[in-house]
Amino acid sequence: MTAEKIAQILGRVRKENPLVHNITNVVVTNFTANGLLALGASPVMAYAHEEVADMAKIAGALVLNIGTLNRETVKAMIIAGKSANDHRIPVVFDPVGVGSTLFRTEMAREILSKVKVSIIRGNAGEIANLIGENWAMKGVDTGNGSGNTRKLAQLAAQRLNTIIALTGEEDVVTDGHEIHIIRNGHPLLTKVTGTGCLLTSVLGAFAAVEKNHLLASVSGIAVYGVAAEIAAAKAGHEGPGSFQYEFLNQLSKITEKQIIQYSSTENTTVIE
Amino acid sequence: MTAEKIAQILGRVRKENPLVHNITNVVVTNFTANGLLALGASPVMAYAHEEVADMAKIAGALVLNIGTLNRETVKAMIIAGKSANDHRIPVVFDPVGVGSTLFRTEMAREILSKVKVSIIRGNAGEIANLIGENWAMKGVDTGNGSGNTRKLAQLAAQRLNTIIALTGEEDVVTDGHEIHIIRNGHPLLTKVTGTGCLLTSVLGAFAAVEKNHLLASVSGIAVYGVAAEIAAAKAGHEGPGSFQYEFLNQLSKITEKQIIQYSSTENTTVIE
Amino acid sequence: MTAEKIAQILGRVRKENPLVHNITNVVVTNFTANGLLALGASPVMAYAHEEVADMAKIAGALVLNIGTLNRETVKAMIIAGKSANDHRIPVVFDPVGVGSTLFRTEMAREILSKVKVSIIRGNAGEIANLIGENWAMKGVDTGNGSGNTRKLAQLAAQRLNTIIALTGEEDVVTDGHEIHIIRNGHPLLTKVTGTGCLLTSVLGAFAAVEKNHLLASVSGIAVYGVAAEIAAAKAGHEGPGSFQYEFLNQLSKITEKQIIQYSSTENTTVIE
Repeated sequence: MTAEKIAQILGRVRKENPLVHNITNVVVTNFTANGLLALGASPVMAYAHEEVADMAKIAGALVLNIGTLNRETVKAMIIAGKSANDHRIPVVFDPVGVGSTLFRTEMAREILSKVKVSIIRGNAGEIANLIGENWAMKGVDTGNGSGNTRKLAQLAAQRLNTIIALTGEEDVVTDGHEIHIIRNGHPLLTKVTGTGCLLTSVLGAFAAVEKNHLLASVSGIAVYGVAAEIAAAKAGHEGPGSFQYEFLNQLSKITEKQIIQYSSTENTTVIE
Repeated sequence: MTAEKIAQILGRVRKENPLVHNITNVVVTNFTANGLLALGASPVMAYAHEEVADMAKIAGALVLNIGTLNRETVKAMIIAGKSANDHRIPVVFDPVGVGSTLFRTEMAREILSKVKVSIIRGNAGEIANLIGENWAMKGVDTGNGSGNTRKLAQLAAQRLNTIIALTGEEDVVTDGHEIHIIRNGHPLLTKVTGTGCLLTSVLGAFAAVEKNHLLASVSGIAVYGVAAEIAAAKAGHEGPGSFQYEFLNQLSKITEKQIIQYSSTENTTVIE
Repeated sequence: MTAEKIAQILGRVRKENPLVHNITNVVVTNFTANGLLALGASPVMAYAHEEVADMAKIAGALVLNIGTLNRETVKAMIIAGKSANDHRIPVVFDPVGVGSTLFRTEMAREILSKVKVSIIRGNAGEIANLIGENWAMKGVDTGNGSGNTRKLAQLAAQRLNTIIALTGEEDVVTDGHEIHIIRNGHPLLTKVTGTGCLLTSVLGAFAAVEKNHLLASVSGIAVYGVAAEIAAAKAGHEGPGSFQYEFLNQLSKITEKQIIQYSSTENTTVIE
């Protein structure tokens, strides 16, 4: 995938400012909304069972995040997800902390059994858990394992029949066939809560404007990573507080030229 | 309304630091609390049905915001609202996203049918929906229509028998008779989530110290807008992340002298 | 307690990065998670009745905060608390706003009757209310009374059989026998929402790595206060917005050397 293509898709997000409907956790709502606004998308959070179907169908994408799930929010996610499916709105799923408790695993699998999701974004531990594989994990910060994440992502994409965006030290995006690696980002992202969750919502914004969701996912991750690199270079030495607001600045200011200059992606697909 | 009067009311907010009870949405709770604290008010968020009546009656104002409503929070709003009405505590209402789903419209109307509100703050699309008028809208970011917002605000104030604070490119405050225009503020406010919601809570703080709620609304909007202008001049070029924290700084630091110098309001009432 | 000891415990928090399970209020979730991350701990928020027992037992500490309580979250707190008790995980309790409504008082007492808590962190008004003593209060910002807070803390520790961390103009930590005073901190902490709540969660992180919870509490408060002083010196003149992010920076950057240099604690225990 060319850097020009990625930059062009960012341009479309800013021009079309898609409405992204988030059913997400209580820790990251504010940061998610500010990140989407900074990027040029239009966030909405709506959870009531009585309105999520209506909201999902007018959105450009629906993002489901189980970070602080309960049965009521899961029910809302399924109602919204079915509505999105009916109206061909892409659904992006973030299985936060799945595997850290049995309840999360059950709920994540229930959502996946009832809603067709276009993209799943998670770390290695979360992705592994979704397909019943083992991976070292700790609380919701799962996934600092040492396995082959490319293979894991590919396997998950094939079994779940969706695009997997597995993020970590190396970011992998795959539809089970093509495998793309993105080498952007910065370790300071792990020092600010909700950066993974916001990335998932950003993939929603990209999927809303680009029908090829493999391309949308690679582009969203690359843009996000480049913004993080610039923010870290500018304010990272000050600490995670400064990085957080500078990252929002850069999501807003990053130019297509900077994307072309700094994004680093690779198609590593091996003919099997 | 003179700028001196506005500055004087700000001084009273800081001196009396009124307790503002917010039943608001999960996206903006933190920003709302920090904004009220910066301004000099004392925020409290309480939602449990068992305690909202008690909390509302010790507050200086009650703020109801339906941004992430559900039946339980609406029920809490009505309990709190009735308690506020009984104890002559002003109620300020923010009908976030009303019109984007049928559920929001129904719930907003139910609240208005059961609680006497002193001030409604919303954008043109939201205000129009409350009185059954059409206006272009998109998700909860409704209201970039092109109609005559002054006329709309006046009509809504008359029909709903309350003060309408309609904010947008031009801010309008009216009790259905007098019409005031406030020409402060900055476009960066639209790039930070919850700036509309925080403004609604700020109007609660002003209404808590100034019994003339038309005057309180004009003053609150003017102070908020001047703070935004100064923050934008100081940090706006950095981006929305920097603007967000600088805006909190300015809500805290803005002087009565600056209010006198920069606030721009106009009474455009036409004798009918 | 020596400053060297305090610095050493901070070092252990950063090395062990304990998982802190928070069941907290909707206003402070994001700030709490970012503060714990900055400090070097690993935050998790989980509320569902079906999973809180599982999450609490894999955590290093459980933090319960009733800031925006309802019956469901109180039930979750009790389930999680019992699990923590069963697995000898320390429980830290923040009775936010207790006394401002009868419901809060009842719920706080119910939690204390069913869960053995290691540390309670609150202001004078909150601590007084827990043991049925009078203290001037206003909303959830209770406790600017003028009584003898050392005596109050000691009485509460004895009656509730726990460690009391009473914070205010002077911070007091006591197990009912030893009384420690911490003279760090900065008034700007009162201008940022959730700084008390985050401190409670920070005490959870310290209690997770230091079995002597009296020592853990004194250390956590001292580290927190020193970070606030440095942040205020660096950015406090800018306002509460700047102080907020600089405080997160300092929680991340503060060195053990700075702790040794600036922490100010005193054991004031009087032999009775």
